[in-house]
Amino acid sequence: MADIKESHTDLLIIGAGPAGLITAAWASQYNISARIIDKKASRIPNGHADGLQPRTLEIFDSFGFVDQPLKEGCHETEICSWNPDSSGTLQRTQRVVSQKPGISRFQVIILHQGAIEQTVLDFLKLGGRVEVERNVMPERLEWEGCNPSDRDSHPIAVTVRHTGDTTSRQPLNGTNPKTTNLASDRVVANGIALTGQDEAKGRLERIRAKYVVGCDGAHSWTRTQLGLSLEGKMTHHICGVMDIVPLTNFPDIRQSCAIHSASSGSIMIVPRERRLVRFYIQMDDTSNSGILDRSRINPESMLKAAQTIMKPYTLSFKYCEWWSVYRVGQRVAPKFSVDERLFLAGDAVHTHSPTLGQGMNVSMQDTYNLGWKICGVINRTLKPEILETYQPERRQIALELIAMDHEVSKFYYDNSISRKDFQSQRERFYEFLSGVSVKYGPSALVKDSSARSRSPLTSGSSSTYTAEPSQTSNNFCEPEKPTSSRNLATNIYPSVRIPSFKVVNQGDACPTHIASLLPSTGQWRILIFAGDLSFRSQFARIQALGSHLAAPSSFLHLYPANLIEVYTIHSASRARVELLDLHEVFHPWDEDAGYDYWKVYADDDSWHEGFADAYGAYGIDRKDGCLVVCRPDQHVGLICGVDELSVVEEYFKGILIQRSDTQGRRKL
Amino acid sequence: MADIKESHTDLLIIGAGPAGLITAAWASQYNISARIIDKKASRIPNGHADGLQPRTLEIFDSFGFVDQPLKEGCHETEICSWNPDSSGTLQRTQRVVSQKPGISRFQVIILHQGAIEQTVLDFLKLGGRVEVERNVMPERLEWEGCNPSDRDSHPIAVTVRHTGDTTSRQPLNGTNPKTTNLASDRVVANGIALTGQDEAKGRLERIRAKYVVGCDGAHSWTRTQLGLSLEGKMTHHICGVMDIVPLTNFPDIRQSCAIHSASSGSIMIVPRERRLVRFYIQMDDTSNSGILDRSRINPESMLKAAQTIMKPYTLSFKYCEWWSVYRVGQRVAPKFSVDERLFLAGDAVHTHSPTLGQGMNVSMQDTYNLGWKICGVINRTLKPEILETYQPERRQIALELIAMDHEVSKFYYDNSISRKDFQSQRERFYEFLSGVSVKYGPSALVKDSSARSRSPLTSGSSSTYTAEPSQTSNNFCEPEKPTSSRNLATNIYPSVRIPSFKVVNQGDACPTHIASLLPSTGQWRILIFAGDLSFRSQFARIQALGSHLAAPSSFLHLYPANLIEVYTIHSASRARVELLDLHEVFHPWDEDAGYDYWKVYADDDSWHEGFADAYGAYGIDRKDGCLVVCRPDQHVGLICGVDELSVVEEYFKGILIQRSDTQGRRKL
Repeated sequence: MADIKESHTDLLIIGAGPAGLITAAWASQYNISARIIDKKASRIPNGHADGLQPRTLEIFDSFGFVDQPLKEGCHETEICSWNPDSSGTLQRTQRVVSQKPGISRFQVIILHQGAIEQTVLDFLKLGGRVEVERNVMPERLEWEGCNPSDRDSHPIAVTVRHTGDTTSRQPLNGTNPKTTNLASDRVVANGIALTGQDEAKGRLERIRAKYVVGCDGAHSWTRTQLGLSLEGKMTHHICGVMDIVPLTNFPDIRQSCAIHSASSGSIMIVPRERRLVRFYIQMDDTSNSGILDRSRINPESMLKAAQTIMKPYTLSFKYCEWWSVYRVGQRVAPKFSVDERLFLAGDAVHTHSPTLGQGMNVSMQDTYNLGWKICGVINRTLKPEILETYQPERRQIALELIAMDHEVSKFYYDNSISRKDFQSQRERFYEFLSGVSVKYGPSALVKDSSARSRSPLTSGSSSTYTAEPSQTSNNFCEPEKPTSSRNLATNIYPSVRIPSFKVVNQGDACPTHIASLLPSTGQWRILIFAGDLSFRSQFARIQALGSHLAAPSSFLHLYPANLIEVYTIHSASRARVELLDLHEVFHPWDEDAGYDYWKVYADDDSWHEGFADAYGAYGIDRKDGCLVVCRPDQHVGLICGVDELSVVEEYFKGILIQRSDTQGRRKL
Repeated sequence: MADIKESHTDLLIIGAGPAGLITAAWASQYNISARIIDKKASRIPNGHADGLQPRTLEIFDSFGFVDQPLKEGCHETEICSWNPDSSGTLQRTQRVVSQKPGISRFQVIILHQGAIEQTVLDFLKLGGRVEVERNVMPERLEWEGCNPSDRDSHPIAVTVRHTGDTTSRQPLNGTNPKTTNLASDRVVANGIALTGQDEAKGRLERIRAKYVVGCDGAHSWTRTQLGLSLEGKMTHHICGVMDIVPLTNFPDIRQSCAIHSASSGSIMIVPRERRLVRFYIQMDDTSNSGILDRSRINPESMLKAAQTIMKPYTLSFKYCEWWSVYRVGQRVAPKFSVDERLFLAGDAVHTHSPTLGQGMNVSMQDTYNLGWKICGVINRTLKPEILETYQPERRQIALELIAMDHEVSKFYYDNSISRKDFQSQRERFYEFLSGVSVKYGPSALVKDSSARSRSPLTSGSSSTYTAEPSQTSNNFCEPEKPTSSRNLATNIYPSVRIPSFKVVNQGDACPTHIASLLPSTGQWRILIFAGDLSFRSQFARIQALGSHLAAPSSFLHLYPANLIEVYTIHSASRARVELLDLHEVFHPWDEDAGYDYWKVYADDDSWHEGFADAYGAYGIDRKDGCLVVCRPDQHVGLICGVDELSVVEEYFKGILIQRSDTQGRRKL
């Protein structure tokens, strides 16, 4: 090993697909050292995943890179269900909305994975801190444990080979590239063909890291090194996928459709950018008990199957951009992390059918959950125990997804099931599919003020595989309402991301989405719903709150400046409040820039965009208000009354490291 | 002249400020040769103009570059009026909305001119066809007339000097650069200091052009060469302008305000990007009859004046990004073009006070009007006579602007005028200020079907300076309703840009702004408001219209393919119409790409964005519909009934050159 270059990094991300890139996006927001490696020579050129759900778009927006996908992608609005009538003729039987109106300010966008990866790559480039290193193949992982409190050493070693240009580079605009999960991992690994000869080439490097995140896909090398495998089962369903520019007289070709023929199987179509349409075609080989004849599946056979299903409508194509074949599996890893030093995310820990456009979303949401925790621990603002919340928060979501996928697959593939009520079937899953209803259990990060005694950090539930995927679907629908917060904010749920409504800036009258106050910078936010400041008593309450927050003894001073931001949203008429009458802590003075005019908002009518009634939508009393603490990922950590600052103080004490405890400082 | 390089271009644009850049943006959309030169070494670094009115943002959107200004600029929502109370103490007396809600989908954006220029420069770079050539100083203009029908020669010669780096380069992020129109044109020309020595340097080039557009500002070299000068008067009002990051306890510093003191003069403040605020400060020197002591005006003296006016509020600054001094003048050139070969636009032909943020907007709107006409004549799709419409269409706007400016200046500067009703004063000018109500007289381009006999091409009104600025303000408010179209579309006015509402795509259910169907590509559009297609008789009418449009004898075939686009917007429930039941001319087939699904829309409820009721807003009968023809600049050329295709045919015959008339083909 003497002639191997050794280097050090705080965070090593293995795999630059969507999950890895979101980890890198977080790392790019912090002043830490991070590297992201990928064995492939380039990003995905086309095809693959293509759905961006509302919550994923909210996440993109929180980083500041939602514009490009919104502009480039295809907006999915309506989904149609087509079924045979009594004579067997295909008919449009229902039109349903793609996503429940009002649950997010974004709807579904359909865009190929490569364009989505490019969006994050552009963001990383702009940030200039983290850059994807390609043609880097991990070969050896060394991990022998370490003292959990050891923050300085780099206890993990990953030996990688820089393969340079020895792997075949995929053209970004090639036609008909293909991948398949039916080939063995060895021969075709994520679309790059490897030969023994190539493997012998390239420089070796031993990267020593404090933390490692494996985002290296369903055939995860990292997971294998950790001795873990996906658990669950492969189904007998074979799904052909192709992206074509269809030539057809099928009326709904520019809408997502679930098309079920009388006896020839099913198709899902999803319209895409650049006149492309994604076809998911059921290709089950019932003639051949379980052994799949791969040679029979190609764009031509898929087209033939589609033509049969879509009769009497015609279908052909001249251009196929990408195609693939999947066998549907529903599997999850028993653990998502090892010793809170090595983490797995995305396809590396959960796989399921592609038809609902969830995989890429849940994968990115995994690392959106994990990234700020690791970065905050590395920059010594967060207690290392916070990392114990990753597995319980995200593995439960994977289990719920797989339970849902099981049910939905049945609906699509099982001919014995009635498909008449497509709409109610969709409605059951809307919120789960959107990603906005994801809820997590109580922990140091999620306090239900009625249940503050419970702490997941000591519950031991984070490292054992117990829950089977729930077959009941209550989890998909609506989060439980914790009794304690019901009185204060009946529609804000602890652990769920806070919905966004427009409020009006007190200082400049501009309508502003509350979400825009909560960008992904690693900061925590106290949202002071200050109630009706035109009442003298309420105004006095809020001024008293301001005095407490500004006092030398305030917990705000325990932590690095700006780690906790304070925003005020009052419910009085904007015209009845003068910004500068409020305590200065609500609009801090800077000796070079003057007052901060972007911290106080009114839930009031706006000149051009109406009245959102955020208090009403949140279920907050317009007179009394409340406090809501948002985690760096916009999930609600705590709800309490405006007089309960001690509850907020206690919440942060369980999570954040005080200034005196550390030399490290976050760069914001 | 033998050793001077001679070159040829279809279009030479002199000056790369906002007006020149919009001319270049048009040129970039056509397959013609065009050059744009500027004597300065770089774009404006900061300061200068800073307001983008709704119509200008619509224009930006039509080119596809509105996003950056929307993101980077400051959104002006509310304007406050501050006046002394009976005791002389400054009080907020009114809050008014910055722009009348509903007149455009954009509101006002405030952003420094350099950022706006950069937005267009980025667009040009992306297009790759036209690039600004800097350090190029025009020295000699040769024009001896030509045969108007001569389309091949390059009858204009402009000799330019490539000064390279001999002019002093302005730093893009410098502090305290200054310009002034009080200095002589010779010494300081658009902010670049010239010396006799510098002028002697540099290579000469003789550029022969078919057309020249002079966009070289208030001190226009081009205008001078053409022997024209601005006519009108300079006022005695001196206006100091500075962009500072204010340190103040004035409550409305992040809103636009008109602040009038009891006896110390007035201030306009306009909040900007990056915590900057633009101050317009009245600096009239009443002690010194008419002769201005320039040495007394600088940021310090402006601050002192502002402090006096804003008492009892405090004001100071540590950062001043830019400042300048203006003497307010209201002047217009007698002609905007010479022989329809040489054109002038922007500050070169009209100047006025800067306080209403109109100058840059009207300048860009000048060349937005002119650009497609010149480019269309050059690429031989438009008859050259169309160029005669530029002066009558735009000079009238300049006269109206100056009339309004006169009135508004009085309101701001004349202490004898009551300022109590700031709101009514704003309301009189809203639509004119927004730019959306601009209306043009009848011409070949604007047909009122009741007045088809009138033609401005023969009226001779285009070359004489007759009208004095109108002192009545009817023109600012609401366009006249031509009687002929009142029955068909009571709220669509011939010659006025068509307002935009969201309709729903028939094929994919996506809400779509009608404006997005009308991008600035040089194409003409027939909007078929097809009425209620669920009525069999109306459906038959529209199918008959389709047959006529598709017939071999149709006028559509007389012109290059796609020069005229056809869009259909029906008023039936979307679910009651099948796209492919409509005549194919409404959703044309392409053998490689299939049907065009982006040509037919329903004025119907949408899943996520409500029902815009475009028919109601346009005043179009939901059952019968009508036809509206839009010029390439979204202004309405013609309104007629769905059975009156011959009127449309006649309209285009007066404007477009038929295929057989020319070898040239537009690239679209």
